[in-house]
Amino acid sequence: MTSIFDSNLPRNAANFASISPLGFIARTAEVYPQRLAIVHGDLRQTWGQTYARCRQLASGLQRLGVGKNDTVAVLLPNTPPMVEAHFGVPMAGAVLNAMNTRLDPQAIAYMLDHGEARVVIVDPEFTGLLAKALTLRQSSAPLQVVEVQDAVYGPASQSLGGMDYEALLASGDAQFDWAPPADEWDAIALNYTSGTTGNPKGVVYHHRGAASNAISNVLEWDMPKHAVYLWTLPMFHCNGWCFPWTVALRAGVNVCLRRVDPQSVFDAIRQHGVTHYCGAPIVHGMLVNAPEAMKQGLPAGVKAMVAGAAPPASMIEGMERMGFDLTHVYGLTETYGPAAVCAQHDDWAQLDIGERARLNARQGVRFHLQGDVRVLDPETMQPVPQDGETMGEIMFKGNIAMKGYLKNPKATDEAFAGGWFHSGDLAVQYPDGYIKIKDRSKDIIISGGENISSIEVEDVLYRHPAVLAAAVVAKPDAKWGETPCAFVELKDGASVTAEDIIAHCRQHLAGFKLPRAVVFGELPKTSTGKIQKFELRKLAAES
Amino acid sequence: MTSIFDSNLPRNAANFASISPLGFIARTAEVYPQRLAIVHGDLRQTWGQTYARCRQLASGLQRLGVGKNDTVAVLLPNTPPMVEAHFGVPMAGAVLNAMNTRLDPQAIAYMLDHGEARVVIVDPEFTGLLAKALTLRQSSAPLQVVEVQDAVYGPASQSLGGMDYEALLASGDAQFDWAPPADEWDAIALNYTSGTTGNPKGVVYHHRGAASNAISNVLEWDMPKHAVYLWTLPMFHCNGWCFPWTVALRAGVNVCLRRVDPQSVFDAIRQHGVTHYCGAPIVHGMLVNAPEAMKQGLPAGVKAMVAGAAPPASMIEGMERMGFDLTHVYGLTETYGPAAVCAQHDDWAQLDIGERARLNARQGVRFHLQGDVRVLDPETMQPVPQDGETMGEIMFKGNIAMKGYLKNPKATDEAFAGGWFHSGDLAVQYPDGYIKIKDRSKDIIISGGENISSIEVEDVLYRHPAVLAAAVVAKPDAKWGETPCAFVELKDGASVTAEDIIAHCRQHLAGFKLPRAVVFGELPKTSTGKIQKFELRKLAAES
Repeated sequence: MTSIFDSNLPRNAANFASISPLGFIARTAEVYPQRLAIVHGDLRQTWGQTYARCRQLASGLQRLGVGKNDTVAVLLPNTPPMVEAHFGVPMAGAVLNAMNTRLDPQAIAYMLDHGEARVVIVDPEFTGLLAKALTLRQSSAPLQVVEVQDAVYGPASQSLGGMDYEALLASGDAQFDWAPPADEWDAIALNYTSGTTGNPKGVVYHHRGAASNAISNVLEWDMPKHAVYLWTLPMFHCNGWCFPWTVALRAGVNVCLRRVDPQSVFDAIRQHGVTHYCGAPIVHGMLVNAPEAMKQGLPAGVKAMVAGAAPPASMIEGMERMGFDLTHVYGLTETYGPAAVCAQHDDWAQLDIGERARLNARQGVRFHLQGDVRVLDPETMQPVPQDGETMGEIMFKGNIAMKGYLKNPKATDEAFAGGWFHSGDLAVQYPDGYIKIKDRSKDIIISGGENISSIEVEDVLYRHPAVLAAAVVAKPDAKWGETPCAFVELKDGASVTAEDIIAHCRQHLAGFKLPRAVVFGELPKTSTGKIQKFELRKLAAES
Repeated sequence: MTSIFDSNLPRNAANFASISPLGFIARTAEVYPQRLAIVHGDLRQTWGQTYARCRQLASGLQRLGVGKNDTVAVLLPNTPPMVEAHFGVPMAGAVLNAMNTRLDPQAIAYMLDHGEARVVIVDPEFTGLLAKALTLRQSSAPLQVVEVQDAVYGPASQSLGGMDYEALLASGDAQFDWAPPADEWDAIALNYTSGTTGNPKGVVYHHRGAASNAISNVLEWDMPKHAVYLWTLPMFHCNGWCFPWTVALRAGVNVCLRRVDPQSVFDAIRQHGVTHYCGAPIVHGMLVNAPEAMKQGLPAGVKAMVAGAAPPASMIEGMERMGFDLTHVYGLTETYGPAAVCAQHDDWAQLDIGERARLNARQGVRFHLQGDVRVLDPETMQPVPQDGETMGEIMFKGNIAMKGYLKNPKATDEAFAGGWFHSGDLAVQYPDGYIKIKDRSKDIIISGGENISSIEVEDVLYRHPAVLAAAVVAKPDAKWGETPCAFVELKDGASVTAEDIIAHCRQHLAGFKLPRAVVFGELPKTSTGKIQKFELRKLAAES
């Protein structure tokens, strides 16, 4: 018999609406139309204006024939059109593919083809890159190019003869009556993983997940209304960890930034009263290591989020000296960017910096609206003991996990095997439930049958005062199978020897974990600041 | 052809989870097990303990035979078991019916019967009330009574021979593996409207809506982690506006309170560092009008939420003098409590108190996660002009609207006619989109063919310095059809005449809106502090 609570109580238009971050900008534009939404060079754009422009973009795209589930690719830095694309593209029912502008033309061509883009919007800085990519496409499907002008950059060195972005907007209706997604499971974005080998995979985001992560960002950070957010993190990286939607939800300010360098960042913070920003460790390290004179007059209490690697003690200390408050988060493209946070406890403030850094170096616990994150034995799918020792794989489940990989059911099935998303990161879980990464599955070093966590060795290297960046990879070894090989980038003016480094490591590590070789020099990094270990592995194998 | 974005990308256990506020307490207990969750008299209970007790409650209820969609009614004041019931009952798959403890035995009996309660949990203060209600039930279905002990209250004057609450918990498993709702549309709570005539209607809440409103509470208030929330608002009123779930989400503190009086409230604020509380206007008015000596040593910046009637200028001023920050919200039982907020703007702070009060007296805009709120012409279902003049009916749509009325498809269909929830409140919409109630449909006074907003007249009455509370209703009139009749409750020691009151009104109102009669005395109020106009209407008709 049907329960009384399930009888004649169906969903209807009054009591059920699809969950989507698109509602965030609509509400903010209604309630705070005059508040500042975007700062870029001399440009000041309110939420009323921004919402109108997003509707024009959506309307203009529809007039170009773009509709439900069509892909609109963009090759844009952190500029106003990039913010607008995060709303205007899905308001047209379409899917936003924000491409990494630092990739090579082959990779761009691959994404345009694989994602079946109908339109591509390009910044003047990247018309050359796009031109090359267009010659490399395999597909002959029509692709409409839309070219942005940006006074901050100046004219493009090369025009592609595409449609002008402002003309596209002018063709659209500022009152366009966009429809929320028919189903909150509809795709909102497509983000290609920066795969280190093989073709990148297309990670599909849905509206429900994007909204869940955007709201979680507020909850993790206690982010208040009208926060001023500085765009140090590329919006092409997991849709800027969903922060374009979060900033709209908070009726905050998007402070755009074409280039991330210490002077630009500090100037923006002082000039616009920035309260929040995100970035890879390299961004925060760059700020910490900037000349003291550059840091004069910074406001207190700026909140920073770091992901990509655990913040070493020196970074935490340096951030504290600047008066910044650092939150360590963790996730993957497949989890809409960070979906775990090293939630801090009040009593940690009493601990010495070493202990604070140890605690903060952990990847922590699930985001507020994520279902679960756990370290499971990938064979048995059972949780590992919470002993801080037993390794397993970090797995997520809940509403902050991708829809799947585009046109790749095999990879999708593997990623979701057993009802959990498999991160590929090896970790332990502490008695307090906090997770700590020991390594990427593929980064573990197996020496004489012993597992060596490359991250553990790197953490020790980072503690050396002369070390700016460090990475440890496996070097093939006839006797041991593999041995750790350290690549070290020193701070400006520092001078140490390989012996100094190994002696430093010996104080903190068991003998079998010590690097057998130390190579000095600048480390190869991805566009998002991740160190490219596959390059280092090649170097280690060759050396 | 199926789109590439809809092919092989289904929901699965890894990327889709039902939305429910039950996950909030699970995460908080995992991340902050040692933090304080509940204060009650000498009791201090952590989140770890509270979560364990909720699981015991759920497990114990299941052992009593309670399962999916069974109703568990409670007759509890704002005590720890009431907090626990908000989690333990739905963790058992059951539906919580928090009954208004101020109702008469007939109404309690009606709810127990209509809601088909299987279990009723009762506080020692209300065993007598329940005993009478049990004799009045029509249904002969078995009903398990569970009796709470409370050291703060003392022994019950009458025992019903029911099961002891602690024994029920002791029968349950603190590690109980509760299941989230199979569908987020499943019922979580049943709340009877305090209908002024006829039988109350049973409003059914679902998990999705409860979570949406609980999260919105955080967003409206910028409520930080570890907020200290004082329970001045009864949890039996729209599940305390969903704040039991909000406080869990924020890992905050529930400061319980059996009785709301100024001394108890101020003591609790000082002793426990209360940061947030909610209440009807009468609660805030009581605090504002308390002796100054009682207010010594209050912390600054306590945030208060008011709903039920617009806060008059004198209340806003009084709150400001205490250093409290008042947010005006609006909603109905059917919208999980408040689902609209008079969102304040920074520049309002520059205005004089009269203008601030006028702006803050508006019901405002939709909650962050509510889909829409608008003033529509109920005939055409078209929006009224945003001119601050044209009246229509306030209507809501979105995820913060009830599942419907229990066993009442006719009322459900009427309430949701045309794809909007009809509030029954008549209002105008201002050019800035803010809504202002002019009256309940049934409270409008029609005099000589002119509509008179009872609220407009009441607002003027509240501006008189001697007036503590006021209500205006229609009095039948042979010549005019109806005329306004004012009921006025004066502040202690105040002395004014009916002529004084009418003279005051004449300064602010058109002649036809002036009360023709003024009656002094205490106003009849519902348990939630709402003035009972139907009683006043009877008095007006008889006088």
